[in-house]
Amino acid sequence: MKKALLFLSLLSAPALAGEGKWTPQQVLQLDAAALKKQGLQLPPQKLWDPKRGTGLLAGTVNVGGCSGAFISEAGLVITNHHCAFSIIQEHSTPQRDLLTQGFLARTREEELPGKGARIQVPRAFTDVTKQMLEAVPAGADDLARQKALERKEKELVAECEKRPATRCKVARFEGGLQFTLLDSVELADVRLVYAPPRSVGEYGGEEDNWMWPRHTGDFSILRAYVAPDGAAAPFSAQNVPYKAEFFFPLAPEGVKPDDFVMVLGYPGITFRAMLADEMADRQSRYYPRVIDVYGELIRILEEQGEKDPSGKIAVASNLKSLHNRYKNAGGQLAGLKRGHLVEKQREAEAAVVEWARPREEWAAALQARTELLALRDEDAKTFERNFLLDALRGSTKGPGLAATLVRMAQERVKPDLEREPEFMERELPRQKDRLEREQKNFFPPADKRVLLALVRRAQALGAGERIAAIDKAFGRAFSEKDVSAKIDALYAGSKVMDLAERQKMAGESEAQLRARKDPLLELGFDLAAELVALDDLRDRREGAGVRLMPQWRRAVLAHAGKPVAPDANGTLRVTFAKVKGYAPRDGAFYLPQTTLAGVLEKNTGEEPFNAPTKVVAAAEARKYGPWLDPRLKDVPVNFLADADTTGGNSGSPTVNGKGQLVGVNFDRVWENVSNDFGYNPDVARNVNVDVRYVLWLLDQVEDADALLRELGVRKGPKAQERR
Amino acid sequence: MKKALLFLSLLSAPALAGEGKWTPQQVLQLDAAALKKQGLQLPPQKLWDPKRGTGLLAGTVNVGGCSGAFISEAGLVITNHHCAFSIIQEHSTPQRDLLTQGFLARTREEELPGKGARIQVPRAFTDVTKQMLEAVPAGADDLARQKALERKEKELVAECEKRPATRCKVARFEGGLQFTLLDSVELADVRLVYAPPRSVGEYGGEEDNWMWPRHTGDFSILRAYVAPDGAAAPFSAQNVPYKAEFFFPLAPEGVKPDDFVMVLGYPGITFRAMLADEMADRQSRYYPRVIDVYGELIRILEEQGEKDPSGKIAVASNLKSLHNRYKNAGGQLAGLKRGHLVEKQREAEAAVVEWARPREEWAAALQARTELLALRDEDAKTFERNFLLDALRGSTKGPGLAATLVRMAQERVKPDLEREPEFMERELPRQKDRLEREQKNFFPPADKRVLLALVRRAQALGAGERIAAIDKAFGRAFSEKDVSAKIDALYAGSKVMDLAERQKMAGESEAQLRARKDPLLELGFDLAAELVALDDLRDRREGAGVRLMPQWRRAVLAHAGKPVAPDANGTLRVTFAKVKGYAPRDGAFYLPQTTLAGVLEKNTGEEPFNAPTKVVAAAEARKYGPWLDPRLKDVPVNFLADADTTGGNSGSPTVNGKGQLVGVNFDRVWENVSNDFGYNPDVARNVNVDVRYVLWLLDQVEDADALLRELGVRKGPKAQERR
Repeated sequence: MKKALLFLSLLSAPALAGEGKWTPQQVLQLDAAALKKQGLQLPPQKLWDPKRGTGLLAGTVNVGGCSGAFISEAGLVITNHHCAFSIIQEHSTPQRDLLTQGFLARTREEELPGKGARIQVPRAFTDVTKQMLEAVPAGADDLARQKALERKEKELVAECEKRPATRCKVARFEGGLQFTLLDSVELADVRLVYAPPRSVGEYGGEEDNWMWPRHTGDFSILRAYVAPDGAAAPFSAQNVPYKAEFFFPLAPEGVKPDDFVMVLGYPGITFRAMLADEMADRQSRYYPRVIDVYGELIRILEEQGEKDPSGKIAVASNLKSLHNRYKNAGGQLAGLKRGHLVEKQREAEAAVVEWARPREEWAAALQARTELLALRDEDAKTFERNFLLDALRGSTKGPGLAATLVRMAQERVKPDLEREPEFMERELPRQKDRLEREQKNFFPPADKRVLLALVRRAQALGAGERIAAIDKAFGRAFSEKDVSAKIDALYAGSKVMDLAERQKMAGESEAQLRARKDPLLELGFDLAAELVALDDLRDRREGAGVRLMPQWRRAVLAHAGKPVAPDANGTLRVTFAKVKGYAPRDGAFYLPQTTLAGVLEKNTGEEPFNAPTKVVAAAEARKYGPWLDPRLKDVPVNFLADADTTGGNSGSPTVNGKGQLVGVNFDRVWENVSNDFGYNPDVARNVNVDVRYVLWLLDQVEDADALLRELGVRKGPKAQERR
Repeated sequence: MKKALLFLSLLSAPALAGEGKWTPQQVLQLDAAALKKQGLQLPPQKLWDPKRGTGLLAGTVNVGGCSGAFISEAGLVITNHHCAFSIIQEHSTPQRDLLTQGFLARTREEELPGKGARIQVPRAFTDVTKQMLEAVPAGADDLARQKALERKEKELVAECEKRPATRCKVARFEGGLQFTLLDSVELADVRLVYAPPRSVGEYGGEEDNWMWPRHTGDFSILRAYVAPDGAAAPFSAQNVPYKAEFFFPLAPEGVKPDDFVMVLGYPGITFRAMLADEMADRQSRYYPRVIDVYGELIRILEEQGEKDPSGKIAVASNLKSLHNRYKNAGGQLAGLKRGHLVEKQREAEAAVVEWARPREEWAAALQARTELLALRDEDAKTFERNFLLDALRGSTKGPGLAATLVRMAQERVKPDLEREPEFMERELPRQKDRLEREQKNFFPPADKRVLLALVRRAQALGAGERIAAIDKAFGRAFSEKDVSAKIDALYAGSKVMDLAERQKMAGESEAQLRARKDPLLELGFDLAAELVALDDLRDRREGAGVRLMPQWRRAVLAHAGKPVAPDANGTLRVTFAKVKGYAPRDGAFYLPQTTLAGVLEKNTGEEPFNAPTKVVAAAEARKYGPWLDPRLKDVPVNFLADADTTGGNSGSPTVNGKGQLVGVNFDRVWENVSNDFGYNPDVARNVNVDVRYVLWLLDQVEDADALLRELGVRKGPKAQERR
């Protein structure tokens, strides 16, 4: 690492327990004595050594948007079950249903390769603020500014990725106050070693999702492979396990209440720097619309999936993600209300404004805030339309993939650096994977019904925000029957959902695609035009943000007078926490640990509480092995800590003060979903699989001897006796 | 009181905390030192003085099947909101909706008389076992035995009720091991003094019913009136408040966790003496059928009530009771499973059998058990039919009231002592009240749909258990449409649901009723015939029970070797308990107290969480007055104790060791519903309104100065300041 993020770590102060997703650089600036007092038994430099690019954080990997951790020298990675979901799904068929049964590779040969699976291992973080800002031409308007920044970002990334098997990206902190180039090694041969049955990995399903008390074994174990020479390489039978420079040894003694823990990982996005009025928009407009629209899509996919077992498998992945967003939105609304987060942000903002007003040097910051508020008014005008356009792009397969094919053709003719980032050469293999993988998720009756629902909503939009592509495609067909018939015709006449044809289309020019006269592609062309315009609008908006936000945030940070952990942006972070319970509501207290007894207690034998027979039998027979917690008199299953996490922290290693793995983070509690807008110490709790539940399953249930040996763990005597 | 229940209190042993609904007589036999150690600060004789027929228990009254307590010398009685429901409903109209708004009489003149409301004050308990058993002729069969016992019971009651305003009944303990004559004064002029708005008295509605944490102000305050000479009398403007010999002073300091409390009242019925196989029938057959049939009736009443505001008021009372039974059944099933109650009973029973087998003196007891098991097999054969016949009698207004009118005519011609108890002269005013009162609950579309549902079920019964009345009335009309048309015709041609006509019918002979050729009455005649036969069958069954159960129970009690509190039978009991929370499930702990903060937390503004504006305003403004609990820093709303309660304990006074009122019992927690079959100390919790919530409402919300003065309570200074 070349440079620390100076501004963000300018001020030194004691670390706060719980609150704060600290960057690797900030960790080194925090008060080491205070961290030690909290329970960190390692010098902070053991977390991250910027000179050597190593430390605990180097063992913390990115698994396709989730987090994960090396847990053996031979490239074993632990992450969440739901983060390895696509590999498991890929190898599942109604005949050999790994989703349901789970999977254990008893030898390395049995490990199952995952098509799209990638693991990124962090290597370096470089401050590129100066280069980025210098790339903006004097007098550039907001769109030009954004385009210039995007261009510069691409150049920096391209330069960085000249090295083999390297993935780089530029991350923006505090709205553009700082830019960091993140440099990672990308391992492309990732194989499934162990996945518990879905009824363990998703025990409680949607019903328990975001909930506590929880009893979910939400973990899977993968292994990264490289070429025999050690270089990252795509799947090959000749490949050998990746040798991890750093890995987390397991701590079979686990945790107890009040223990110090750290959660390391790649939190995706949070909104704590938002202006209060922007937060209020989320509360009054955005989340209610998510609940409305995605709620309808969920009902459709569930209905359609019920009709056909293969359809059910096909829609599973989309349904899971919709459910997650839907329930998340409800939690955001509840938490925003409960935590009075908008009101608190408004007060905090007012304090900064009051402090800045008499100080001339902050006049520009106040002006920036005023302009940001004006931009927000502008956004409101096309909110409904843009929400639906995004849903058409993201939640339909037919029109969504058609638009992607058109965009690929349109972008392919441009020089690489001028393309939209997702269509650059480096992304094409990923796009092609997606084009192929989506076939597994395609279930025509469901897709058509989703499109029908979105079209009917689009038809109801106001005159000022019509979606032209939909108006053109459906014209005066306003009755459900007529729209439905038109949709049937669209799909019947199209080859877009034929995998082989689609793969051909992915290489064709705009003219070739036009010549096909494929009705879904026609709709795709029209949607693509509007999506390009929308993306431009958003680029312009983002350019304005980069111009204004840093000015305002500079004032906020100066007013704070102590280190402030920046909003999550998908970059590596660590949060310092304690194992602790909470009071979810008046009259109730949630303990920080759950046990096997609770798995049995919830078990109805019916989804989502249908624990596998072998798990039930071992738990009922009290075959605890050495994984018994003497205080709980049972095997711990999940635990809570007050770590500051968000989406992207899924699969994060949760480690003790010595840097040993004590759990795997997989969720936040319902009351803490709105944590994205502000940390509320009363209810800020993340949910972890206890490492002892992992070990109990591998030992007492699965007899995964080889795997346990590799993890350096001794099998339980009772288990040995049992066989 | 003349005689103690000797057998039941033969053995002396320390009182058990929690478990046991002790009779007044047993209390005097329990270990006084142990009770003192538990927290009872009064000598046990203060609870009940059998010589004088007075003590705490004498202040504990029966309010139409609920419990209640005198809380002022001038006849104020506190009970549950849901126990005073019918008075409140009686005075509610869509124009003046007391159910919704609540009611406070600011002067005695404003107090509202309740038509059917009665309060019974206990006076004496007399052992009549010898008289009862001697009344059975030698060689009587089971039906004759039961008839002889019923006859004797009527004679004893008639003799007892020769005194004015006296209500007596004979209660059976341990299946007939002992009989006690209960002698009460009945006060017939009962008026409503205070009822909180329904959104306080039923806050949380069906959603929170049986649940914890709870925030329900389920109480109302009544006043009993008597003639100016002090004699009980029906309503008259000249009446004066009843002078209570004993009343419970309020304890404004309330309770804290671990405090000793007693719950006094009239628990209705429990089944702890049942044989394990009989319990198993409840689990596998009875409760599942309750859920099935009542679940359907609930859906019907809800649907119909939605269509019409006055219909909604009419079905409210029935719906409430159906909901209660429905949710209760679910809780029984869950608790029977969780507590392994059938298995435990089976073990306990096996232990008695094993102990008795080698002892010749218990041979008859074992034989009695064998015969009871054979009777149970017999019962199974017509279970489904009888369940439906009971539902036709109890859950329809049209056919149900028609059958009652027929039975009244049939019984009226018999000498009083030979009538079925509910048709004896002493009950006729009550029957007439019911005939009148039911008009308020009659909503024709709902009643017809309920009948339709039951008829269609009856049509599906097996050949061996047909309901002839239904077969005759509906013949070959099997389609829903045809049955529905026949039902419309039944109601259209009938005068049964016309109040004035029905009141005339109540005085008519069978011949007069026949001559009316009223189609509902025709159905009533046919139903009545089958109900008489069913009642005979049950009398015979009960006669067998009285012959067999005492023999078996004598062995069980001898085997126990310590006092065993008998099953609830609607007679006065006391349970000794502590204020305490519980663990409802793995990972969660429920605190024993809730607060106003929780009322606000749950408040959505929509039913059932629509706290009244004045309550919300006072709570939000933290107008706590002197009712603040310093430990909770808030006003307590509800609390838990481990008292041994059941239905009938609704409205029970919950009192401290000094005999002062600290709360009003109104529910059990969900996990404790199956308490009826066995006490599980881990989850046996009753739910009480905290007296400080009562006082806070009267003081800070209602400004009920006169009432507070009468209760001997000083108003809060903040409240005074506020005005």
